[in-house]
Amino acid sequence: MINVRTDLAIESRELYKQRNNQEASGVEVEKDEGKEYTVTRVKIVNEMGSKNLGKPEGTYITIDVPRLKNTDQDLKDEISQLLAKELKGMGKNDKNTKTLIVGLGNWNVTPDALGPKVVDRVLVTRQFYIAYNKDSDETVANVSAISPGVMGLTGIETSEIVKGIVERTKPDLVVAVDSLASRKMERVSTTIQISDTGINPGSGIDNKRMGLNEEYLGVPVIAIGIPTVVDAATMVNDTMDLIIESMKNEAEVGSKFYSNLEQISSEEKYDLIREVLEPFMPNIVVTPKEIDLLIDDLSIIIANGLNMSLHHGIDLKDVNRYIK
Amino acid sequence: MINVRTDLAIESRELYKQRNNQEASGVEVEKDEGKEYTVTRVKIVNEMGSKNLGKPEGTYITIDVPRLKNTDQDLKDEISQLLAKELKGMGKNDKNTKTLIVGLGNWNVTPDALGPKVVDRVLVTRQFYIAYNKDSDETVANVSAISPGVMGLTGIETSEIVKGIVERTKPDLVVAVDSLASRKMERVSTTIQISDTGINPGSGIDNKRMGLNEEYLGVPVIAIGIPTVVDAATMVNDTMDLIIESMKNEAEVGSKFYSNLEQISSEEKYDLIREVLEPFMPNIVVTPKEIDLLIDDLSIIIANGLNMSLHHGIDLKDVNRYIK
Amino acid sequence: MINVRTDLAIESRELYKQRNNQEASGVEVEKDEGKEYTVTRVKIVNEMGSKNLGKPEGTYITIDVPRLKNTDQDLKDEISQLLAKELKGMGKNDKNTKTLIVGLGNWNVTPDALGPKVVDRVLVTRQFYIAYNKDSDETVANVSAISPGVMGLTGIETSEIVKGIVERTKPDLVVAVDSLASRKMERVSTTIQISDTGINPGSGIDNKRMGLNEEYLGVPVIAIGIPTVVDAATMVNDTMDLIIESMKNEAEVGSKFYSNLEQISSEEKYDLIREVLEPFMPNIVVTPKEIDLLIDDLSIIIANGLNMSLHHGIDLKDVNRYIK
Amino acid sequence: MINVRTDLAIESRELYKQRNNQEASGVEVEKDEGKEYTVTRVKIVNEMGSKNLGKPEGTYITIDVPRLKNTDQDLKDEISQLLAKELKGMGKNDKNTKTLIVGLGNWNVTPDALGPKVVDRVLVTRQFYIAYNKDSDETVANVSAISPGVMGLTGIETSEIVKGIVERTKPDLVVAVDSLASRKMERVSTTIQISDTGINPGSGIDNKRMGLNEEYLGVPVIAIGIPTVVDAATMVNDTMDLIIESMKNEAEVGSKFYSNLEQISSEEKYDLIREVLEPFMPNIVVTPKEIDLLIDDLSIIIANGLNMSLHHGIDLKDVNRYIK
Repeated sequence: MINVRTDLAIESRELYKQRNNQEASGVEVEKDEGKEYTVTRVKIVNEMGSKNLGKPEGTYITIDVPRLKNTDQDLKDEISQLLAKELKGMGKNDKNTKTLIVGLGNWNVTPDALGPKVVDRVLVTRQFYIAYNKDSDETVANVSAISPGVMGLTGIETSEIVKGIVERTKPDLVVAVDSLASRKMERVSTTIQISDTGINPGSGIDNKRMGLNEEYLGVPVIAIGIPTVVDAATMVNDTMDLIIESMKNEAEVGSKFYSNLEQISSEEKYDLIREVLEPFMPNIVVTPKEIDLLIDDLSIIIANGLNMSLHHGIDLKDVNRYIK
Repeated sequence: MINVRTDLAIESRELYKQRNNQEASGVEVEKDEGKEYTVTRVKIVNEMGSKNLGKPEGTYITIDVPRLKNTDQDLKDEISQLLAKELKGMGKNDKNTKTLIVGLGNWNVTPDALGPKVVDRVLVTRQFYIAYNKDSDETVANVSAISPGVMGLTGIETSEIVKGIVERTKPDLVVAVDSLASRKMERVSTTIQISDTGINPGSGIDNKRMGLNEEYLGVPVIAIGIPTVVDAATMVNDTMDLIIESMKNEAEVGSKFYSNLEQISSEEKYDLIREVLEPFMPNIVVTPKEIDLLIDDLSIIIANGLNMSLHHGIDLKDVNRYIK
Repeated sequence: MINVRTDLAIESRELYKQRNNQEASGVEVEKDEGKEYTVTRVKIVNEMGSKNLGKPEGTYITIDVPRLKNTDQDLKDEISQLLAKELKGMGKNDKNTKTLIVGLGNWNVTPDALGPKVVDRVLVTRQFYIAYNKDSDETVANVSAISPGVMGLTGIETSEIVKGIVERTKPDLVVAVDSLASRKMERVSTTIQISDTGINPGSGIDNKRMGLNEEYLGVPVIAIGIPTVVDAATMVNDTMDLIIESMKNEAEVGSKFYSNLEQISSEEKYDLIREVLEPFMPNIVVTPKEIDLLIDDLSIIIANGLNMSLHHGIDLKDVNRYIK
Repeated sequence: MINVRTDLAIESRELYKQRNNQEASGVEVEKDEGKEYTVTRVKIVNEMGSKNLGKPEGTYITIDVPRLKNTDQDLKDEISQLLAKELKGMGKNDKNTKTLIVGLGNWNVTPDALGPKVVDRVLVTRQFYIAYNKDSDETVANVSAISPGVMGLTGIETSEIVKGIVERTKPDLVVAVDSLASRKMERVSTTIQISDTGINPGSGIDNKRMGLNEEYLGVPVIAIGIPTVVDAATMVNDTMDLIIESMKNEAEVGSKFYSNLEQISSEEKYDLIREVLEPFMPNIVVTPKEIDLLIDDLSIIIANGLNMSLHHGIDLKDVNRYIK
């Protein structure tokens, strides 16, 4: 059982392997390497896999793009296209699919504002379907979008708002976009996770209480997320590991000091750190300084990817025309 | 029948009187004069009254505060209190009422952002009722709040979003806050209208197609609005009237020119202006230059008024503590 | 002498021609027609021309792009390139020129925020020249940028702030970007004016008192402006003209009514309108409803144009990489 | 010599005492305890004191208000008044003093935006002195204000912009407001530091290279700052100390493990952490999650304090009227 906080299946899997020196049972992993990116597909195929990684069964696709921060337009476009391809590859939509895009998170908290920013930027078309009383179109699919806010702002659980809208507007598919927490600073704003499991309780920057998944909403839910913060306890933990490692290098192997260092570096350390940080934990974020600009950039990449994957007639040469 | 665009019952009534030289049948009017403000209560009591003023039956309370623009804190506080009093006077809520506040309008269009700004600022408490599993509280009532956006942003009709949320969260009362259009520049940001009729099709800065009223939502709807723009045709019309008036003063009474001027100043002039401006109409707003700051100020006045009228235990000495 | 308020030389020239039925002496006009745009170069070549058009001697280039509102990326790119070409054509800069970009206007008043938004988005490089102690570079020129605010925000005249910075940082060229007022709604956000005369007293949305020109700053000043508002009096005036015109069409030619109409349509009408509107004038803006989005779009077009014209090594395929 | 990063003199002094078990020579400390706050005055009286604390000679007043986060209006008002009193107590201004308020920091980086937010909110009056050609006034003093941005945005060193404006507008006093870094999370947004030394190289969230002090500007400079971030290395360091402490409690005193733990807790640990974090350091901020709202609140407290201390005729009952 994993108690380390991460929203990324790829990190849950890394932790499992690190602790057990083997791949988790019930988990299948597949990798594609591009020049600028790696795509990792983690499939949790049964209950055992779900228990091992602490995540629901389903497919989790991770796109790692180390150069994504502050990169040039060409790489951004490439990643938008890759995202579109992977989204289509999930097989949940075609040109007749009615999609509701949901931007999760608090627009007043910069690293939590990714979802609302994406919603600001996607091409919304449902109003034209209604105005012209259409059922289908060769160029654009039926897409609506909403940022429901967080409970601290509205007094209403996010999932209730979304459920209410789904019941009224009857989409075939929900795509939920959210800011995530990662265990590693280097993943912040360089990794995109797509999964067909929706959003589940306890994930995201603000722990969600209710799920935003097919079980609750009655339609498939694709979740797209990018880590925008690291957990403070994780940062302390990882730094301590590096420090202890460097002390061990200087200590005599087999000495008492060496074994003490090993001892400190044990399983309980993370829990100890959490405990010490706990009083501050809910209120601390560790985030890149330029997070405001990163969120802007990333929201355009995701919005472009969504526009290309949902709308039949929109490809790379058009897509920047639709971005707001 | 009135075809002049105004969201204010008080202006519909002025127009009726101006054209017919008498109060409209089916309409009752009452005035309270304060030192800094006038409260006018227009009651449309039957179908005839509704037809005469072109508005649904119900009570329309107008608070006119000529000095409200750029005023001092004392007058703002006084108006918040007055607003609270008038809202309570509607008799739609007590300390056990569950209220949903809806901020209508487009947050990307400054003069249309009043509703969303109010929602940003009201005290939202429903989450505590849920967290502590409470039914009632002596200090704060159960209040939730949402800004559903406009159809151009979400692809979903505002009223559908609100209906979905009302169905899920079952409030006893909806309070809808909206930016209005006035016929007179001097009313912009100095007049507050409260009505128990909700929001009806064709009102607001963006013409709404569906209503946000008791008929549709199944619970009473109080609408609060402040004019933030004037209709361009109205501005041209009124200016022309003043000009023609001043020409008439210089023309010889009884002369052909005088009667021609009278003729120009006829009923059709407004329609003519509309026709001429029509191509630009949907896209033009005439608004005070400092509208960004006015919207900020007015949203605080309304949010304070709402906080005092909805929450039992909050009065003027507390209210600025809750403003965000 | 012209007393009608316009910041566009092209409109001053139109007015002159309309009133005098001939081109103004001391004024030379040249036109280039493109498929999507017209470039008009108005040169005021002597004092007489300056007196006739009510503007300082110099070159005023106007790019009219009727489809510029809500257009596609290709046309935006084309206009950015055209702007870059015209700016280079002024002959005020090469790769060794140190340029200070000044974003004029009040960032709190949406239609006045064009200049500050452009400054947010241009590629600023002077810090690298300082950090690496360089004098020249093949790719990027030495560019700094500031938005000095308006006197109501800072208590300091804009021109004093700019003068202070020019004295400390010694640029070779100042480029001032500003929101303008036009006489015609159709020019709002479709026309770009570039001039080598700088900004002169009485221009812009907020009347400036002091100039931002070579005489005051000691270095050449290129001004770039886009109309974002129309003058309210102008709108009323133009609407009245259209109405009177349509009445004249119906009146019998030669009749008294006809001549009265002609009489109303005289020179003094505009002044009368100003007089009537005067009490509201300083505080009213007439602007497109979607002005928030237009300002965003236009600021990118100008920033891209500036980046291509100032920085040697940046062309169209790179330019969107540098936009923030 | 201190190499730990803190902008607070009170923390430099704590560190010195901790390491040397005595008050630093050349440093005088004085405390006032209020019910809700502690005022500590650290005076660095000579060169030795300056060397010991790593800060220039001068007076550093720290107001610690543990309850300041999310507090009520009464405490906020009390702290604004206290701030006003302490500012007046510095003896640098009277009703004839011309003051320039400078808001330092990057408005695009939330925790760095305190200074610009304060500048947005202070009462600026210099324009009226100029308009009415006045030299003095019984109610309001001559105040101007500017947010010069940071070098990454403008390409110009902040101090050069300020120097240029000081040379043109000749204020008698500069007040510089800035976001600070603290060593302790509990000081973030609960501590206000006022000093008469201005801003000196290497302080603030973005290390400044040039000073904003009397030596450079030629007029006295009061600096006001509030910590809005903690240094990431400090957070790790402090967490490790707590963990080691708790391990020591469980280890046998005198055991090898115990002494090893003591050894780890040595001087070099902090440097080691810095080294490990260095690659991420310039880009990581550790900040409260609700920093957006905190910056808003704190900027009002400071702006109110400045309004009351600079303007003769403004006291607590007026001050909220002037806040934007």
